[in-house]
Amino acid sequence: MTFMEKIRQAWVKNNSLVCVGLDPDIKKLPACLKGAKYPVFEFNKALIDATADLVCSYKPQCAYYAGQDVEAELKMTMSYLQETHPEIPVILDAKRGDIGPTAEMYAKEAFVIFNADAVTVNPYMGLDTLKPFMDYADRGTVILCRTSNPSSRELQELLCNGMPVYEHVAKLAQEKWNYNRNILLVVGATFPEELGKVRSICPDIPFLVPGVGAQGGDVQKVVENGLAADGLGLIINSSRGIIYADSSAEFAAGARQAAIELRDLINQFR
Amino acid sequence: MTFMEKIRQAWVKNNSLVCVGLDPDIKKLPACLKGAKYPVFEFNKALIDATADLVCSYKPQCAYYAGQDVEAELKMTMSYLQETHPEIPVILDAKRGDIGPTAEMYAKEAFVIFNADAVTVNPYMGLDTLKPFMDYADRGTVILCRTSNPSSRELQELLCNGMPVYEHVAKLAQEKWNYNRNILLVVGATFPEELGKVRSICPDIPFLVPGVGAQGGDVQKVVENGLAADGLGLIINSSRGIIYADSSAEFAAGARQAAIELRDLINQFR
Repeated sequence: MTFMEKIRQAWVKNNSLVCVGLDPDIKKLPACLKGAKYPVFEFNKALIDATADLVCSYKPQCAYYAGQDVEAELKMTMSYLQETHPEIPVILDAKRGDIGPTAEMYAKEAFVIFNADAVTVNPYMGLDTLKPFMDYADRGTVILCRTSNPSSRELQELLCNGMPVYEHVAKLAQEKWNYNRNILLVVGATFPEELGKVRSICPDIPFLVPGVGAQGGDVQKVVENGLAADGLGLIINSSRGIIYADSSAEFAAGARQAAIELRDLINQFR
Repeated sequence: MTFMEKIRQAWVKNNSLVCVGLDPDIKKLPACLKGAKYPVFEFNKALIDATADLVCSYKPQCAYYAGQDVEAELKMTMSYLQETHPEIPVILDAKRGDIGPTAEMYAKEAFVIFNADAVTVNPYMGLDTLKPFMDYADRGTVILCRTSNPSSRELQELLCNGMPVYEHVAKLAQEKWNYNRNILLVVGATFPEELGKVRSICPDIPFLVPGVGAQGGDVQKVVENGLAADGLGLIINSSRGIIYADSSAEFAAGARQAAIELRDLINQFR
């Protein structure tokens, strides 16, 4: 099954647009995991077990594994997901971007070493950076378009021929780059009007939407501006708001509750 | 010693602007290394031993290690460089780019886990992405500005207020971002006139210049357009042209010869 088929199936089966970001900060893990041999993996495993019927996707953030030297536990997490929930697509949040043979190596990292269903990439260097990922036709390539952070405006809002840079990215994705129909775009929840503009340029491309919860994005506006015509097309990520919802030994139950609430909040506006 | 002091010292001491890219493709390693326990590390070690008096920097490309599942050998290479040649600054080519706590994790990956002197980063998300790196005041943050690949024009050449995006990046680096005086810029050798433009915007910022050799950049034009007023300011990278100069058991001697030729070719135009 391709990534696009998988995400569609997960949206419908779980009636959910929620993506859970697996961004484990070792300093923030529940005390009950402190003595474990693989605390990061145990944390992820418990979160997955508690939420797999509530989500359309999981999104592990590479940086948390690389920066804490626990990439082995990212591999364990990916294997666990593939064994227990092969029907749920996993987006590796890596934001890679390089060219030629180097980009091919990064595509191998994402799609072979970690066996992710999709990966996030940075478009600053153009199609040369994206093609080695998109050539894996059954996987998804999730391109940064309009990111949720305040300083995204420095480059992304520069006006070129009356159109900001991020809209040029959306147009390139819609009109030029999507030869394998496996592109997604990152559009932050913190700019809901701009989400609507990108939706008007790209009517059918799924959006990965970070920025609800801790970053303050408004769920109602995201849904109203971002849904595709079929009532789907959004993968709304929450990391901290779900995985740290409860810091006690009951953290998994707390995460489940937070995921239910976000799913229901989103569905209320669909 | 800070990165900026270290690179200046290495430029002068070795009278060289050459950076050797350590991008080992396991399929291309010399046959004599095929049986080694750590062939990638042995390859790098031999290249380092053969060229350390000829270069101003080494630049390992993360993707080759991540994509071939040999990050342990990148760590061994970094340790070897720090033990045997602490005076030569090492630029980790990672092209990372993320925000907030996630960017802090990537900065840890580069500066703590790998203990690199500098790291390449992508500016598409603005200062939020760069600050966690630049806050390591003694390290270097190397920001993509004008990359050497053909499709870099898709975004980097978009004209905003009469100025292409990459010049906006140069201006931001010069006027706003460089609060710790530890920024460098990536400017590709394949666009020498644009290299001159970026130099006129950023008179003192060192440039990391990929694209000579395999990608066809013209060394004379790079030097003429890119040198800073003090006759320094360029870190001219060659990967394939040096590390695969000779595929026999004499590969290290071949790399040394290629590094001498590039150093002398560059110095001829300084």
